[in-house]
Amino acid sequence: MTERVVLAYSGGLDTSVAIGWIAEETGAEVVAVAIDCGQGGEDLDTVRQRALECGAAEAVVADAKEEFASEYCIPAIQANALYMDRYPLVSALSRPLIVKHLADAARYHNATMVAHGCTGKGNDQVRFEAGLAALHPELKVVAPVRDSGLTRDKAIAFAEEKGLPIDVSKKSPYSIDQNLFGRAVETGFLEDIWNAPVEDVYAYSADPSEPRQPDELVVTFTAGVPTAIDGRELSPLQVIDEMNRRAGAQGVGRIDMVEDRLVGIKSREVYEAPGAMALIAAHQELENVTVERDLARFKRGVDQRWGELVYDGLWFSPLKSALDGFVTDANRHVTGDIRVVLHGGRAVVTGRRSEASLYDYELATYDTGDTYDQTMARGFIDVWSMPAKIASLRDQKQA
Amino acid sequence: MTERVVLAYSGGLDTSVAIGWIAEETGAEVVAVAIDCGQGGEDLDTVRQRALECGAAEAVVADAKEEFASEYCIPAIQANALYMDRYPLVSALSRPLIVKHLADAARYHNATMVAHGCTGKGNDQVRFEAGLAALHPELKVVAPVRDSGLTRDKAIAFAEEKGLPIDVSKKSPYSIDQNLFGRAVETGFLEDIWNAPVEDVYAYSADPSEPRQPDELVVTFTAGVPTAIDGRELSPLQVIDEMNRRAGAQGVGRIDMVEDRLVGIKSREVYEAPGAMALIAAHQELENVTVERDLARFKRGVDQRWGELVYDGLWFSPLKSALDGFVTDANRHVTGDIRVVLHGGRAVVTGRRSEASLYDYELATYDTGDTYDQTMARGFIDVWSMPAKIASLRDQKQA
Amino acid sequence: MTERVVLAYSGGLDTSVAIGWIAEETGAEVVAVAIDCGQGGEDLDTVRQRALECGAAEAVVADAKEEFASEYCIPAIQANALYMDRYPLVSALSRPLIVKHLADAARYHNATMVAHGCTGKGNDQVRFEAGLAALHPELKVVAPVRDSGLTRDKAIAFAEEKGLPIDVSKKSPYSIDQNLFGRAVETGFLEDIWNAPVEDVYAYSADPSEPRQPDELVVTFTAGVPTAIDGRELSPLQVIDEMNRRAGAQGVGRIDMVEDRLVGIKSREVYEAPGAMALIAAHQELENVTVERDLARFKRGVDQRWGELVYDGLWFSPLKSALDGFVTDANRHVTGDIRVVLHGGRAVVTGRRSEASLYDYELATYDTGDTYDQTMARGFIDVWSMPAKIASLRDQKQA
Amino acid sequence: MTERVVLAYSGGLDTSVAIGWIAEETGAEVVAVAIDCGQGGEDLDTVRQRALECGAAEAVVADAKEEFASEYCIPAIQANALYMDRYPLVSALSRPLIVKHLADAARYHNATMVAHGCTGKGNDQVRFEAGLAALHPELKVVAPVRDSGLTRDKAIAFAEEKGLPIDVSKKSPYSIDQNLFGRAVETGFLEDIWNAPVEDVYAYSADPSEPRQPDELVVTFTAGVPTAIDGRELSPLQVIDEMNRRAGAQGVGRIDMVEDRLVGIKSREVYEAPGAMALIAAHQELENVTVERDLARFKRGVDQRWGELVYDGLWFSPLKSALDGFVTDANRHVTGDIRVVLHGGRAVVTGRRSEASLYDYELATYDTGDTYDQTMARGFIDVWSMPAKIASLRDQKQA
Repeated sequence: MTERVVLAYSGGLDTSVAIGWIAEETGAEVVAVAIDCGQGGEDLDTVRQRALECGAAEAVVADAKEEFASEYCIPAIQANALYMDRYPLVSALSRPLIVKHLADAARYHNATMVAHGCTGKGNDQVRFEAGLAALHPELKVVAPVRDSGLTRDKAIAFAEEKGLPIDVSKKSPYSIDQNLFGRAVETGFLEDIWNAPVEDVYAYSADPSEPRQPDELVVTFTAGVPTAIDGRELSPLQVIDEMNRRAGAQGVGRIDMVEDRLVGIKSREVYEAPGAMALIAAHQELENVTVERDLARFKRGVDQRWGELVYDGLWFSPLKSALDGFVTDANRHVTGDIRVVLHGGRAVVTGRRSEASLYDYELATYDTGDTYDQTMARGFIDVWSMPAKIASLRDQKQA
Repeated sequence: MTERVVLAYSGGLDTSVAIGWIAEETGAEVVAVAIDCGQGGEDLDTVRQRALECGAAEAVVADAKEEFASEYCIPAIQANALYMDRYPLVSALSRPLIVKHLADAARYHNATMVAHGCTGKGNDQVRFEAGLAALHPELKVVAPVRDSGLTRDKAIAFAEEKGLPIDVSKKSPYSIDQNLFGRAVETGFLEDIWNAPVEDVYAYSADPSEPRQPDELVVTFTAGVPTAIDGRELSPLQVIDEMNRRAGAQGVGRIDMVEDRLVGIKSREVYEAPGAMALIAAHQELENVTVERDLARFKRGVDQRWGELVYDGLWFSPLKSALDGFVTDANRHVTGDIRVVLHGGRAVVTGRRSEASLYDYELATYDTGDTYDQTMARGFIDVWSMPAKIASLRDQKQA
Repeated sequence: MTERVVLAYSGGLDTSVAIGWIAEETGAEVVAVAIDCGQGGEDLDTVRQRALECGAAEAVVADAKEEFASEYCIPAIQANALYMDRYPLVSALSRPLIVKHLADAARYHNATMVAHGCTGKGNDQVRFEAGLAALHPELKVVAPVRDSGLTRDKAIAFAEEKGLPIDVSKKSPYSIDQNLFGRAVETGFLEDIWNAPVEDVYAYSADPSEPRQPDELVVTFTAGVPTAIDGRELSPLQVIDEMNRRAGAQGVGRIDMVEDRLVGIKSREVYEAPGAMALIAAHQELENVTVERDLARFKRGVDQRWGELVYDGLWFSPLKSALDGFVTDANRHVTGDIRVVLHGGRAVVTGRRSEASLYDYELATYDTGDTYDQTMARGFIDVWSMPAKIASLRDQKQA
Repeated sequence: MTERVVLAYSGGLDTSVAIGWIAEETGAEVVAVAIDCGQGGEDLDTVRQRALECGAAEAVVADAKEEFASEYCIPAIQANALYMDRYPLVSALSRPLIVKHLADAARYHNATMVAHGCTGKGNDQVRFEAGLAALHPELKVVAPVRDSGLTRDKAIAFAEEKGLPIDVSKKSPYSIDQNLFGRAVETGFLEDIWNAPVEDVYAYSADPSEPRQPDELVVTFTAGVPTAIDGRELSPLQVIDEMNRRAGAQGVGRIDMVEDRLVGIKSREVYEAPGAMALIAAHQELENVTVERDLARFKRGVDQRWGELVYDGLWFSPLKSALDGFVTDANRHVTGDIRVVLHGGRAVVTGRRSEASLYDYELATYDTGDTYDQTMARGFIDVWSMPAKIASLRDQKQA
């Protein structure tokens, strides 16, 4: 029986050409797998048809938007996941989802190989291959762009030679990866890190500096999961979609940064993630209200490590799994409403209310009704400052 | 000889009354010490005169703005110090400075006691007393507001009875603490955490939603210290002042949060810190460009702990000192220019350039000229993913 | 109805006297609660009888050894809990157990107060009161030794005056706290930290320097829980008992250290914990075999924090609960056998075997049969060392 | 001019053969560099002579024992560096030292390449190449054992064919790496992790189970550096040598563990490090006496990361440098005497004294003379337990 290779298929030039290229290179039949994570563009049937026309033995398409929202984006919100305190892991979150579908398809179609179109200097190759090593370690990886010279020029030549149904003439100056949690843009002039992005770079967000009316809404969270907007119960996918739309319309969620890639270099990245940034801001403030101090302090370190692991392609790893347990437990009481004003590129929390609140008006107020026993403070301070005080006395004696 | 008590004097009602109150309570002479950390308001001579008129045996005033900027605010910028990822430690930074002046004054004036006007449920009492325990542990603490019933009503009665030169009629609805690094506001209606702040609360920043022209500037850092704006060399105090003015004019730096106090309760706080927030944003991005990845990842944990220690009143502590060494070392190469656009409440970095940059165009570019050896990636990924892969094989075998 | 106070009762002089002392001080009826955590000594009926004879309205005794072993000691083993890398938290583990029984008894007997015999400079007062604050925050705390002058001399005088059935003549030079997980000793001459402990101090362990035959055994763990010794299935209590006996007979588990107390001072402590130390050593090595590297590295930080929280009296806290989830998840595969040789004060692991092992002979061996692909190493090293290399090139350029 | 390659030369079969092998493979002249880190064996002149007889164009030998002790072992003691809480980094510490000498020799001899005899599955290849990438990134690496098939059989055949002056007949069953800080042994039968080591494996330590008299000594530390034994001032090298001899004679410092290699696999390792383990135990206890609690708690995490970085080959990295600053600062007051009893495989601290001690008898004692103010405890506990208490009340309300 002919060997089979499962290809992560996007519908674009590179992976369309890869179908024939891999078939020639390996002698195997290609099963093209296209996953809709909310990247928009063509409908899945068109994509499927093109794969077949380009020579795929099978073409599998899947609408994974709900799965992506629920199983990947929501945990990121619960972990306030911001790589380097800024980037909400947009692409990094979608890779393990795609990997899972590739591994499933490989099992279903008895494939022995898996192929992707990543280059050799990005993070995504690691995320694909590390994920596959965990989920289906027997698969051999084929990476024609990185390992067998499938450059853009060769892809165009190949497409023309074989008469593939792809328009090779249109050339965007931008390299884009997008899904329902956000959008990443790279392009030549931004590789000079002194250059500012231009408005043309953005697609998910309006210009924040344009005057417009603010938009105010109330997000409801249940155990750290956003479950309603303005009282309307919504699925995770619906919440993210609506927040993208409304926060994007106010210019929220643009990020421009120099980033530490897993492969050892720094790169310039421009992102848009209106919904993600607004939801994380709301979630963080609800944590401030409902999570106890020591837990909150420790969780910052857990959140950071969670984000690094996902960025570093280790979604399917024992540490990620153990951190998930921590994050879920810490979100147990993160239930309540957060009022957010979206305006001028900012998502500003202006109110919070929660049955699980640890904010206690009677303890906090300076008005009458105060129940805090202030006489306790002296003793606290005395003991609290003792270790530093003893050390200070020692230092003075030594000096 | 009569005992002496050094009083942290603000010039306001509470501490003006405290002069006589403490004298009566302790039988000691009061030395009033007023420190200008950039809080504005009356000039120091007026404050000094009032202290004497209220009965102080001595009144010491000091302009500590340069010292505060250089020795307290700059280290906070180098540590990207944001308590709970938000609050740039405005009041927490000024307390150790004041403590240092109190301890010095106590030594100079042979005082055996020190007094402050803090209540028993805030952080500042801890910062004062823990700092004094470290710098001058022999001093006995007198805290009339917390420990001997000096309420506002009693203060007014006392002032009227003694004919003190204080206007007891003006009553702000706000409880405010401010200095050159920012401003904190508490007030009754904000104790309901569902209420949004009103414009009236703010003084350091214009309404960010008002349309206006953006302001663009270039901040130069040298080893993590901002040393110039738009090419003009400036002292730390001048940098912070100018950034406060320009970022404040664009509505930058407003913070509204529920916060974990050291004394065990959550409280609602509203802050303004235009310069601090803009400078930290610029500093973080220059770190992204000049600090190596592993160091940057570890530094996030150090920065968090640094901020917690300062918030928790442990400025003068052995751990703070050791973290300072780390932060200084990590800032060695944080030298270069950051272009910032201030507009609509946002301080957005749009460009960075540095002789010490670790961003390497030749390694990062996807254009011709790429020097990154992509053939190395396979080996990296193979070894990188091996531990999770072996664990995954074990899990599958066990399942 | 007369108020009731629940007293943590040990049967010794101080708490026996406390029954009458507290009754006089508060006018309340005393419910004495004695918990057997394996501290040995008198039987529970005798203890119960004495409480009644000393004036208790009720006396409750409970054999909590199984509960203590399963619910408190086992989690400590799973977290390799060693405060300051040395002390297996012997007393710190028993306090939350006692607190739980006190809170239950207070509810059952409608008590409004709770009493303990701790001094004001130790950790235990914090553990009692912080635990009670979490489990039964309405209870008022009565601490006669700390707060109302119940010194040892006064206790003897009180006992003699009231004719209490306690032998006040026997006076141990040692202050001892012990339970089934270990034993703590404090005494005057050890307060000089240059003095070495004498053999007389120890009771759970034989002199390790005496010549004797080694003892070898195999401990079986299931998900991090020791479940058998030499193939005999045992309850947690039985495992700890047997390990205490066998490791103690070989002089294992003596600890002599200067320790950071929660109340801000350093103290000299001598401990014996033969079973605890041997079981933790075995557990750690089984983790080395079965836990993936990144998880193992992160778990060290979690284990440290877990131990600090328990030491610091925060057993019943949100962070402890979230860390428990992490530790349990990390122990999922910690299943297998560890061979330990007990001899001369050492518990040495000499063999390990596990179905869940991540050690793979084929990957590790240098003999024929090696399946590790060594050609991957070059690429790994190239990428692994790149960030430090780029930083080094920058440093050289800058110098 | 002929190219030159600098070879890390040990004098053994593999690297002796490598001289000719590399010359043939690369056409370059070989400069053999042999560094004495205290590994014992032949004298440096003999090693040098053999390199020349095997065809080296130049042979450089250096006694680096003092340098190794002062610059590499001492920092490890200050960081209590124990990888996985056990292994004192013996080989990992010597590699950067050798790398430094190789890089220096390469510059002096105008070499363009550097060669080592490591395999492709160990840590040392990473340590060599990552170190060289930092110190001399222009050098090309040649690794004949890993990359061009120089197996042991081929090495023997090559040596016989070329008549090299090496005895190829003697074959140790053990693969050994040793230096003045310890010794590592790997061998076939230990690759079965259920097998116990046999006495024959060890060379630095006597059998701990043999009866003998204990040895007691006092180590003096100055700022974390051991500077004297029993009052005799010694250099770092002398201290380590004497401790190796005396602790080794008592069987101290044997380690048998399964270890996480950097290259992604677990391996079985047996180590001996008598001096290292005794000195670290003494240093840790002096830290317990002289380092303030918060600093000590944070330092555990720093120490762990320091050890991981060194194990992972990142000695010359920005994070290592910043951690060094922290560790040095934290050791500022680690000055004083520690009495250690060496016996039966154990190094037990029995006394400590220090001018910089933070242990305060007056605060710690339960005897008369106690200066601790116990009335402060109530207030401390009240505030300390408040966050968990409020959370507990919330949880009860929610349940």
